[in-house]
Amino acid sequence: MMIVIMQAEATTREKSAVIARAEDFGFKVHLSDGKERTIIGIIGDDRVINREQIERMPGVERVVPILKPFKLASREFKGEDTVFPLGDHTIGGKEVLVMAGPCSVESRTQIIETAIACKEAGAHVLRGGAFKPRTSPYAFQGMGEEGLKYLAEAREITGMPIVTEVMEPALVPLVCEYADILQVGARNMQNYALLHAVGESQYPVLLKRGMSSLIEEWLMCAEYILSHGNTRVMLCERGIRTFETYTRNTFDINAIPVAKHLSHLPVVADPSHATGKWEYVAGAAKAAVAAGADGLILEVHPRPEEAMSDGAQSLKPEKFAKLVVEMRAIAQAVGRDIMP
Amino acid sequence: MMIVIMQAEATTREKSAVIARAEDFGFKVHLSDGKERTIIGIIGDDRVINREQIERMPGVERVVPILKPFKLASREFKGEDTVFPLGDHTIGGKEVLVMAGPCSVESRTQIIETAIACKEAGAHVLRGGAFKPRTSPYAFQGMGEEGLKYLAEAREITGMPIVTEVMEPALVPLVCEYADILQVGARNMQNYALLHAVGESQYPVLLKRGMSSLIEEWLMCAEYILSHGNTRVMLCERGIRTFETYTRNTFDINAIPVAKHLSHLPVVADPSHATGKWEYVAGAAKAAVAAGADGLILEVHPRPEEAMSDGAQSLKPEKFAKLVVEMRAIAQAVGRDIMP
Amino acid sequence: MMIVIMQAEATTREKSAVIARAEDFGFKVHLSDGKERTIIGIIGDDRVINREQIERMPGVERVVPILKPFKLASREFKGEDTVFPLGDHTIGGKEVLVMAGPCSVESRTQIIETAIACKEAGAHVLRGGAFKPRTSPYAFQGMGEEGLKYLAEAREITGMPIVTEVMEPALVPLVCEYADILQVGARNMQNYALLHAVGESQYPVLLKRGMSSLIEEWLMCAEYILSHGNTRVMLCERGIRTFETYTRNTFDINAIPVAKHLSHLPVVADPSHATGKWEYVAGAAKAAVAAGADGLILEVHPRPEEAMSDGAQSLKPEKFAKLVVEMRAIAQAVGRDIMP
Amino acid sequence: MMIVIMQAEATTREKSAVIARAEDFGFKVHLSDGKERTIIGIIGDDRVINREQIERMPGVERVVPILKPFKLASREFKGEDTVFPLGDHTIGGKEVLVMAGPCSVESRTQIIETAIACKEAGAHVLRGGAFKPRTSPYAFQGMGEEGLKYLAEAREITGMPIVTEVMEPALVPLVCEYADILQVGARNMQNYALLHAVGESQYPVLLKRGMSSLIEEWLMCAEYILSHGNTRVMLCERGIRTFETYTRNTFDINAIPVAKHLSHLPVVADPSHATGKWEYVAGAAKAAVAAGADGLILEVHPRPEEAMSDGAQSLKPEKFAKLVVEMRAIAQAVGRDIMP
Repeated sequence: MMIVIMQAEATTREKSAVIARAEDFGFKVHLSDGKERTIIGIIGDDRVINREQIERMPGVERVVPILKPFKLASREFKGEDTVFPLGDHTIGGKEVLVMAGPCSVESRTQIIETAIACKEAGAHVLRGGAFKPRTSPYAFQGMGEEGLKYLAEAREITGMPIVTEVMEPALVPLVCEYADILQVGARNMQNYALLHAVGESQYPVLLKRGMSSLIEEWLMCAEYILSHGNTRVMLCERGIRTFETYTRNTFDINAIPVAKHLSHLPVVADPSHATGKWEYVAGAAKAAVAAGADGLILEVHPRPEEAMSDGAQSLKPEKFAKLVVEMRAIAQAVGRDIMP
Repeated sequence: MMIVIMQAEATTREKSAVIARAEDFGFKVHLSDGKERTIIGIIGDDRVINREQIERMPGVERVVPILKPFKLASREFKGEDTVFPLGDHTIGGKEVLVMAGPCSVESRTQIIETAIACKEAGAHVLRGGAFKPRTSPYAFQGMGEEGLKYLAEAREITGMPIVTEVMEPALVPLVCEYADILQVGARNMQNYALLHAVGESQYPVLLKRGMSSLIEEWLMCAEYILSHGNTRVMLCERGIRTFETYTRNTFDINAIPVAKHLSHLPVVADPSHATGKWEYVAGAAKAAVAAGADGLILEVHPRPEEAMSDGAQSLKPEKFAKLVVEMRAIAQAVGRDIMP
Repeated sequence: MMIVIMQAEATTREKSAVIARAEDFGFKVHLSDGKERTIIGIIGDDRVINREQIERMPGVERVVPILKPFKLASREFKGEDTVFPLGDHTIGGKEVLVMAGPCSVESRTQIIETAIACKEAGAHVLRGGAFKPRTSPYAFQGMGEEGLKYLAEAREITGMPIVTEVMEPALVPLVCEYADILQVGARNMQNYALLHAVGESQYPVLLKRGMSSLIEEWLMCAEYILSHGNTRVMLCERGIRTFETYTRNTFDINAIPVAKHLSHLPVVADPSHATGKWEYVAGAAKAAVAAGADGLILEVHPRPEEAMSDGAQSLKPEKFAKLVVEMRAIAQAVGRDIMP
Repeated sequence: MMIVIMQAEATTREKSAVIARAEDFGFKVHLSDGKERTIIGIIGDDRVINREQIERMPGVERVVPILKPFKLASREFKGEDTVFPLGDHTIGGKEVLVMAGPCSVESRTQIIETAIACKEAGAHVLRGGAFKPRTSPYAFQGMGEEGLKYLAEAREITGMPIVTEVMEPALVPLVCEYADILQVGARNMQNYALLHAVGESQYPVLLKRGMSSLIEEWLMCAEYILSHGNTRVMLCERGIRTFETYTRNTFDINAIPVAKHLSHLPVVADPSHATGKWEYVAGAAKAAVAAGADGLILEVHPRPEEAMSDGAQSLKPEKFAKLVVEMRAIAQAVGRDIMP
């Protein structure tokens, strides 16, 4: 369904051509002939055609789409919230889920130590990167499969399921051998080959919003995954890029209620990337819980000054433990809870 | 204090010229001669000179300022939070203050009716615009002095102090006759003549962040007001302009903890403008309280569909009353309170 | 003229209410009842009503305006280009006009020296700030009326008309005593009191685009001025604020052809502010001419390393002279010219 | 080389710890002890360590890197422009290269017809997408290998080399069988696995700037490719995402002179994506030539209203032919040329 606004000076011939083309596509047409403008309503599922094929016709000023471009991800398609289990907990329901761990797996000791500390502080899922997207080819790129093995060992010890990033389609099978949840990073949000691969895997997916992605585009990327019948998708707001540079990113807190309004999928917040400075992580995390986030993913490192990546935004375990207590109080204030 | 990074190919003569100029300005100089670059540290209060006068000297690559450009507004200048009374309440302390009312004063009845409803629902300060900045010269521009009179009448009835926008220096005296707090709008954040005038007035000022202003620029505008000895300045985060268009603005929730970190001034959040859609106001408002805001300013209208401006983002009194209850629970969860 | 898109679940009663209200406002209504959505076309001049008064009605999903919000500034209102004289030259016609001079008037000698150099290099209008908007209250704020007097003296000597910024309504009469063209700065683009005042003055106005203003908002500000019957308005693109920080601003070169398409007003480019670094000014200036700018305004300073503001983006007279020659070649390549 | 700015209240112990760590890493250290701040200069190649490992140490306020993070891509590494042949022409030298063709290959006839028209109008390289990144999983995704075959056939007929997008590492070998130049799309700019793969291929690469990428990040991605010894990299500015929505993207014209200043690599402009509307493509294209672009890539379609993607921004062959003539005049005005 879309609306075609004709130019003021459009001829009758041009109007007829638009109508004819719409009818050729099998649409119903509704004409509204005003003094200043003629408007042509095109009725039917326009997801199958290309808006620009109308937009470029002579006499057309612009085309306004009426329906949202995503379907499976939309509230209109599925009214009730999507809820699914992750380990001993669930996401999308009354519970607010806490995922925590270091940015990168750096050694067997480091990940196990951190996992135990996170678990004790109240985390439900362990995060940790084995394959790292880095702006510099000269920077530490992650431990690769060795890191995945250490993550799996940490899961053995703590019982927490693992979320870790996968960066290319060819690595999906390998990551699936070890991980419980696949993370698609912000830089790869529109890496469609990867979206197809994680969709096909049928593993739960944590889909980070690209740093300059519209909420609508983010939901379209969820749609890619859902179109493979993989319904366990979590949307993750991790901050967007704006002119403000004091913080690493601008945490788009509005995106939490908006995504929950437009979609039935659970929404997770990443205050570590959204602020980029550990001093502000607690404020942003508490805000996310108050705004209705279904989960949080936080960077925790026992010695941030030795971290091989993202030390600036990592919390020490004791700060993290304190934050979990504060977040729990807020969760309860908004009718939810963070399980111990 | 600033650091001058010389170009790789800078000559000894060029380095000496920079040093000589810095010394002429009365600064101490510290030279660090590396293999790849020479760095010249310039020590002293560089707020008095012009960074570009060094930057444009031959051989200079760039100049890095070390000190923040604001002084009176900074935590370094004043460590403890600024707290001051507004009517029967205080801002900046343990209490979270709630300001509410319509976008515009539209009639005597409307403002009195809304004021009473807001007061009953828990507001502490009444907001309402008499002079309205509008993108279109053809749109309703506010009731002017008549609106101010109705606001004053509403104050009589409810006991709530009034905050209202003043748009030009020449109107500051008139607005001061009626209002208790002067609001500087986002579009006027860098209207320096206005900043001088409201500074001079010695009235409390609510300074909205410009829609594309850096946090640092916002604090510099507070500095303009403070430089008149007017210390009762509230910073107001009201959303910034980004590529995301689903909401009217992007609520920069990070700005709340950041502004509180950099400055001793109270920080107020405006979730109505920050979202632009009433459906998302509650989520954003609760997030603001959780993130540490000292106050909120919210648009409330008894019949938003009849509002002459900003109806889309106004709450009905019953929604507002419910929101105050929710915000109070969150305030208490973070060790603060919203007074009845 | 606007289109109301009703929610999927809107009731017949809600649809009728929208229609009734539109008819109350005196509009014609056109109903298009689809399976997925009902669309209501509202026909008439909707500039007089408030879109939100429809948007907030129950059952309404969103409202799409069809007509541009500006009228006097639009091509639809006036098809042919606005052309008017400035000194011995004209703007808006075949000629590309060059305005040049220092950021600030710093002394009688400096402005006269620069004016002569600019004139010799090919400038047609002299720029120079006497009242300066500065982010810091501690920075040089301009020479004020004394600066205006020196500008007038420089005009006597060179014959070039003067463009200078006016920052508040109260100063418009004073600035008009000396200047030929009033500049409204980017920070004041939406300072409506100022727009009314410069409109009323009937002086030619150079209206800078706000650093985060939509092209549409910029044209609405021109509309404010035009609504006073002052038709000599020049639009000035001076760069917008984006995430890219390597340059001071991002030069929105697209805005030149877009503004010329939407409006009949002349468009001037300001490559000095648009880049913020003198090394890139020439590239940006040549691009502006190629893209169709009707004029350029450039910062020129005989000794940029001594400039009291914007030295980093100022050209030395010899660079400027070389640039005028290059711009002239491009102007001729696109069928225009820069007069000697 | 980097500079560590200590907090005002940093202790001697904290300063010593920073110095000790820097020395552990093998750096030389330079201390500058001021009244307001202590500055520690760290001298050596800091590309090998992690800035955050210093940033998170107690007492550190911030760390300022001095050297650019890219090396092989920098002008400091290689002073003279990189020039290499593409078919019968060269890029990076005096010649301005024109790449043209449809957004997508849609049929054998369409690509051959367009290729011939482009060649006749003055194009030197044929563009055309066989694998298409699309925001919607329901949209046309390209013809795949069949499309590549038709492109190869069009090359046979016209003699023009082919540039086409490759979207995943696994497809690089297939695309290399047919194409002459590999395009990395804006959405994949930071798809590091893909960057490694195209680097390894040793084919010329057209690297589009991500829509919210800093110029520095774009050059870092070029560095990924260059680090494989593949020196034939072209940087392509295609517009960035900003708040302005009238055009599809904001063409960052500044990026052209900036990239040429920072790097020796050729810079190509994509006015079709940078504007998104065919009406503005010519203005933007001419601006790019004036600003110093080494090449242009333009979308041309014989019947844009039938195009399966990007019809709104495609030029018809006759408009394109006219534009080539205009661009040639500008190229000559800036001392370059577009070969027939």
